[in-house]
Amino acid sequence: MVKVQVAVIGFGDIAENSDLSKMTEKLGQLLIDNDYRILCGGLGGVMSSICKGAKESSNYKEGMTVGILPSLDTSSTNPYIDIKIATGMSYSRNQIIIASSDIVISIGGGAGTLSEIAFAWQMNKKIISISTSGGWSDKLAGEKIDNKRLDVIYEAKNEEEVISLISQLLS
Amino acid sequence: MVKVQVAVIGFGDIAENSDLSKMTEKLGQLLIDNDYRILCGGLGGVMSSICKGAKESSNYKEGMTVGILPSLDTSSTNPYIDIKIATGMSYSRNQIIIASSDIVISIGGGAGTLSEIAFAWQMNKKIISISTSGGWSDKLAGEKIDNKRLDVIYEAKNEEEVISLISQLLS
Amino acid sequence: MVKVQVAVIGFGDIAENSDLSKMTEKLGQLLIDNDYRILCGGLGGVMSSICKGAKESSNYKEGMTVGILPSLDTSSTNPYIDIKIATGMSYSRNQIIIASSDIVISIGGGAGTLSEIAFAWQMNKKIISISTSGGWSDKLAGEKIDNKRLDVIYEAKNEEEVISLISQLLS
Amino acid sequence: MVKVQVAVIGFGDIAENSDLSKMTEKLGQLLIDNDYRILCGGLGGVMSSICKGAKESSNYKEGMTVGILPSLDTSSTNPYIDIKIATGMSYSRNQIIIASSDIVISIGGGAGTLSEIAFAWQMNKKIISISTSGGWSDKLAGEKIDNKRLDVIYEAKNEEEVISLISQLLS
Repeated sequence: MVKVQVAVIGFGDIAENSDLSKMTEKLGQLLIDNDYRILCGGLGGVMSSICKGAKESSNYKEGMTVGILPSLDTSSTNPYIDIKIATGMSYSRNQIIIASSDIVISIGGGAGTLSEIAFAWQMNKKIISISTSGGWSDKLAGEKIDNKRLDVIYEAKNEEEVISLISQLLS
Repeated sequence: MVKVQVAVIGFGDIAENSDLSKMTEKLGQLLIDNDYRILCGGLGGVMSSICKGAKESSNYKEGMTVGILPSLDTSSTNPYIDIKIATGMSYSRNQIIIASSDIVISIGGGAGTLSEIAFAWQMNKKIISISTSGGWSDKLAGEKIDNKRLDVIYEAKNEEEVISLISQLLS
Repeated sequence: MVKVQVAVIGFGDIAENSDLSKMTEKLGQLLIDNDYRILCGGLGGVMSSICKGAKESSNYKEGMTVGILPSLDTSSTNPYIDIKIATGMSYSRNQIIIASSDIVISIGGGAGTLSEIAFAWQMNKKIISISTSGGWSDKLAGEKIDNKRLDVIYEAKNEEEVISLISQLLS
Repeated sequence: MVKVQVAVIGFGDIAENSDLSKMTEKLGQLLIDNDYRILCGGLGGVMSSICKGAKESSNYKEGMTVGILPSLDTSSTNPYIDIKIATGMSYSRNQIIIASSDIVISIGGGAGTLSEIAFAWQMNKKIISISTSGGWSDKLAGEKIDNKRLDVIYEAKNEEEVISLISQLLS
């Protein structure tokens, strides 16, 4: 059976052992517990923590973390990436992360994350935003990006609400 | 002398003869009066009005309007585009509009415009947002996207303030 | 341990049950027997046969076939793809297949394959071409694309020679 | 009236004052004499010579040379480019040069040029190759890339034959 592909986007830089890094790792573990595949931008911060957490799951199998990189160089991923996609498309690799996903989870985030949320909205992907994570995820939880869609960016307050929302939204 | 390349981004759909369409046309005319080249996404709404206005300027010369399209098909531009760049990159063509510009002007705008503002912020381009035009331009005028830059998105209230800000910001 | 990523490129259309389709399937099986991951363009012909063969290997595990698509639509892959990367970059997705690979195998091929061989040469990737498969793989086996590299496109006559060459070239 | 957009592709490095550089400059002049717009990759070699020649034409007007760059940095063009398109798409910018053109002229060329000829064939663009210029232009003049098209890559022996062929092929 084909695995659900979950994009996880957010801050490119977060403090190790911070609450945010711990929550992100825990979410990574839960995503894999639920047999989802994780897609991310392959670099640091949220991208690294989510894949680190993935590997804590007893359900983890090689091939469940995918990193989609801005450069042409596969060696630039974080150490938790199994599948290394080097795009050479600079910021535009964000389009590929989003287009390849069945659902998008947003954690914190600055300008890069904002471009991904905007693309996700345009491509009609369901978006779940963790409102307690700061950045654009906090600002946009529960909001619309524009009036072209009837739904909103769904708000989750923690990693367990994310998992619960994913299963509702994909059913 | 190489012309300054001004990206104009915004709503892909605006009512003909609305105040917004008239302001955008007037801005197009003023940009060309000032000998700037206009870059846009090549399609409708703000993209069409800005290039229509360009052609009203007595300083207009063939080659001053550039449309950078999402598709592979140059025939999909609005009728006011002189130079047709067909990217085939879908939403990612937004990166190219922004990277190619010396400065970015935002008028209204939904999710597509938001992705362009986010890219402009990441690429360290000066951004001028017309706060009276609604959409994301209104919401983000005077704001920061994240803390990686010291400046803000500059606010202009009308087309004349845009022209005045461009000359300040480029000097 | 991170798996070697092998790009397989070639004809987008080959007759079912032809010798070429059988050789491609057998190669797919051998690549997985050797614990390599297969990257391809995700569509038909060689891309489909190689992934179909992959699933015949007793070493096959979910996640070993990756399809990198030209469109934004993940549902357009052949049925043997585990990981669906939708780029929305049209023909340019060829850059991503090549950049993401550790080595490139070419089977037959028309203009699309030729663009991939050219990109592989530019990106300094080792290329193995099956000379008995027709198309550009036949024409370019043993040849150089230009004088910027000291090596050539390596020639293999069948699937077993490919496997043997991969292990030599990667060591 | 909208200008015909002619892509000129070829060697990224040619000796100054060589016969090839002189022929390319002369072709640039003739293209502008005929009121065509020149699209190229914006860098050196053929890309620089063709635009240098353009500026020798008495019909030259600002805006007739367009450079479509692989990087995000508009300052990396050769000095003869009027319109600077920075794609940030690496080798994939080749797709954009070709998709944006009405016709493609090839002069010499290594792997990069070969990828552009392959893309041009796939996008059904008419291609004129100068057979006396060496590289892939020599090898492919008069040939087909694959059997998906009925025509061939048209052969021209010098710059005047190019101009004559363009007018035949576009009529």
